[in-house]
Amino acid sequence: MEISTLGEFGLIRRLTQDIELKNAETLKGVGDDCAVLNFGSEEHDVLVTTDLLMEGVHFDLTYMPLKHLGYKAAQVNFSDVYAMGGMPKQITVSLALGRRFTVEDMDEFYAGLRLACDAHCVDIVGGDTTSSRTGLAISITCIGEVEKGKAVLRSGARPTDLICVTGDLGAAYMGLQLLERENHVYYQQLEEARKKDANATIDFQPDFAGREYLLERQMRPEARRDIILKLREMGICPTSMMDVSDGLSSELLHICHESGVGCRVFEERIPLDYQTAVMAEELNMNVTTCALNGGEDYELLFTVPLTDHEKMEQMEGVRLICHITEASLGQMLVTRDGQEFQLKAQGWQAFDGEKEE
Amino acid sequence: MEISTLGEFGLIRRLTQDIELKNAETLKGVGDDCAVLNFGSEEHDVLVTTDLLMEGVHFDLTYMPLKHLGYKAAQVNFSDVYAMGGMPKQITVSLALGRRFTVEDMDEFYAGLRLACDAHCVDIVGGDTTSSRTGLAISITCIGEVEKGKAVLRSGARPTDLICVTGDLGAAYMGLQLLERENHVYYQQLEEARKKDANATIDFQPDFAGREYLLERQMRPEARRDIILKLREMGICPTSMMDVSDGLSSELLHICHESGVGCRVFEERIPLDYQTAVMAEELNMNVTTCALNGGEDYELLFTVPLTDHEKMEQMEGVRLICHITEASLGQMLVTRDGQEFQLKAQGWQAFDGEKEE
Repeated sequence: MEISTLGEFGLIRRLTQDIELKNAETLKGVGDDCAVLNFGSEEHDVLVTTDLLMEGVHFDLTYMPLKHLGYKAAQVNFSDVYAMGGMPKQITVSLALGRRFTVEDMDEFYAGLRLACDAHCVDIVGGDTTSSRTGLAISITCIGEVEKGKAVLRSGARPTDLICVTGDLGAAYMGLQLLERENHVYYQQLEEARKKDANATIDFQPDFAGREYLLERQMRPEARRDIILKLREMGICPTSMMDVSDGLSSELLHICHESGVGCRVFEERIPLDYQTAVMAEELNMNVTTCALNGGEDYELLFTVPLTDHEKMEQMEGVRLICHITEASLGQMLVTRDGQEFQLKAQGWQAFDGEKEE
Repeated sequence: MEISTLGEFGLIRRLTQDIELKNAETLKGVGDDCAVLNFGSEEHDVLVTTDLLMEGVHFDLTYMPLKHLGYKAAQVNFSDVYAMGGMPKQITVSLALGRRFTVEDMDEFYAGLRLACDAHCVDIVGGDTTSSRTGLAISITCIGEVEKGKAVLRSGARPTDLICVTGDLGAAYMGLQLLERENHVYYQQLEEARKKDANATIDFQPDFAGREYLLERQMRPEARRDIILKLREMGICPTSMMDVSDGLSSELLHICHESGVGCRVFEERIPLDYQTAVMAEELNMNVTTCALNGGEDYELLFTVPLTDHEKMEQMEGVRLICHITEASLGQMLVTRDGQEFQLKAQGWQAFDGEKEE
């Protein structure tokens, strides 16, 4: 059977569904942003998350400088720890390097990695460095801590809970579209020039004017430590939480599935940046579809009890996008013109064929 | 600068040498078999180790079935936790898969992985599954626990300490040579057959008779949980320890470097299996060189105070290969005919040019 038949989540379910946890130290295994462990501490549980990034699949070095890549690879892992309500403390970093990489390349990668670690007070405590027959592979594991028994799982959302999302969505995806477009233009111009002179080089300036925010969101994401600190300060305990890495739709469906609930999300409440909207229009894309399915936002999606409504209204940088319902009501998107659609998480291509407008 | 100029250990040193640890929860960072962490437990410290295995570099699927690969990938990580005197408790498993892999392949890999986890009482608690443009990449992180303050580092060896090694050495390397030889013979025969018929297949039976132990050591290593349990039972606390993954020479030099000491190792005391010796002779290799530099043995190398001499003599499956000296005396190998050589860790090829006999 081809792996694409099951997809990533289907494969993981198949491989891990009947795993029985053997150790009392394992509180939560596969199935959330982090595993939750405890080794005899009365104060803190331990969180563990890991990511494997492959060249040509997760990043393209033609437009991703190694320093940014190091920065982003670290942030992506911190984000998973924040998504449990915890604080990242350590990372291990494993790299497999093709022959074309130099020591200076690795200095660059580590410079970005360390910048991210310094900003989030995280120690680099180990790793593995090896060669690769082909491209670059990066595996980062992040260890974090959370107050004992207080890890926020995906499974705690209850009907009437409010659904909140931080920042704005879809910009990282628009940033990627922009980079790919300019990259395409570059190769077109180069090809033209080489029709006249086979060794021609061109002086190409990509057109990023007025799109800086989109690039920043794609190349320099910031995991939301600030939100976790703010929630603690305000005494708000989310009932469920995860980070938005695969797109809002996908993450909402995960929370609903794990919690056994439904949801109603209002299209008009989904937070969008002006540049995201402009870019989507320019590319003739539906901006809501981008926000729902774009991915790589690394914002936090969480639910809070209805009684926290007033507190949440006061909290800056967080948008209430609506509420959790009984499971029987399904997972619904209410469009600007009042129509209701079943939320889907099929990624851009599949979703595009059935867009709402 | 090319990465080969520095080598793996040189590169890691360059990238991590000036890292300052920021968190009180980080007790030991880069530089040992595991990092050592504590999150407020009075009982246990937490150990973390990680490995990244790349197809074509660390394994060859022509002769490594996926079930064995899963089994070995897990054991290799457990071994690093035992090498700190700890017990592995959880692993995360990340896989990047090329298009040629099927769901059934992954079932096989996980079957091996779970067999190893069951035998060592380890939970699979997370991971990441993604696609790869090329071959298979496997990243495993193992979390373990050790009694608070009792992690055995590489840096505790003192002059007069006894150097001990478990099991026997060089067999895994001989197993690899055997697999590569038979693989070579297969392709030779296939090529011959195809000179006559371009679509020919051959019924090839590799000749492994009497070499089963070597194959087992290469394809089905067992991390030495038994030794750690035995040491605890006998009340022996090693002063330093690591696992033998890169070869005895390399590991001894690590312990000497980290502890600031020298050592004297007697060639005649290095534990060898009969099949290893026979195979080395057949391949016209120096068996001591194989044992010193072969790697992938996953045995434990450790030092104990001289006062534990009697206890160690009684312990089965452990060989005293000699003792730690002052740093000024260097790291020496004493050959069977009484000559002394400086220990080197340059891998097989480099070492071969300067072999002792």
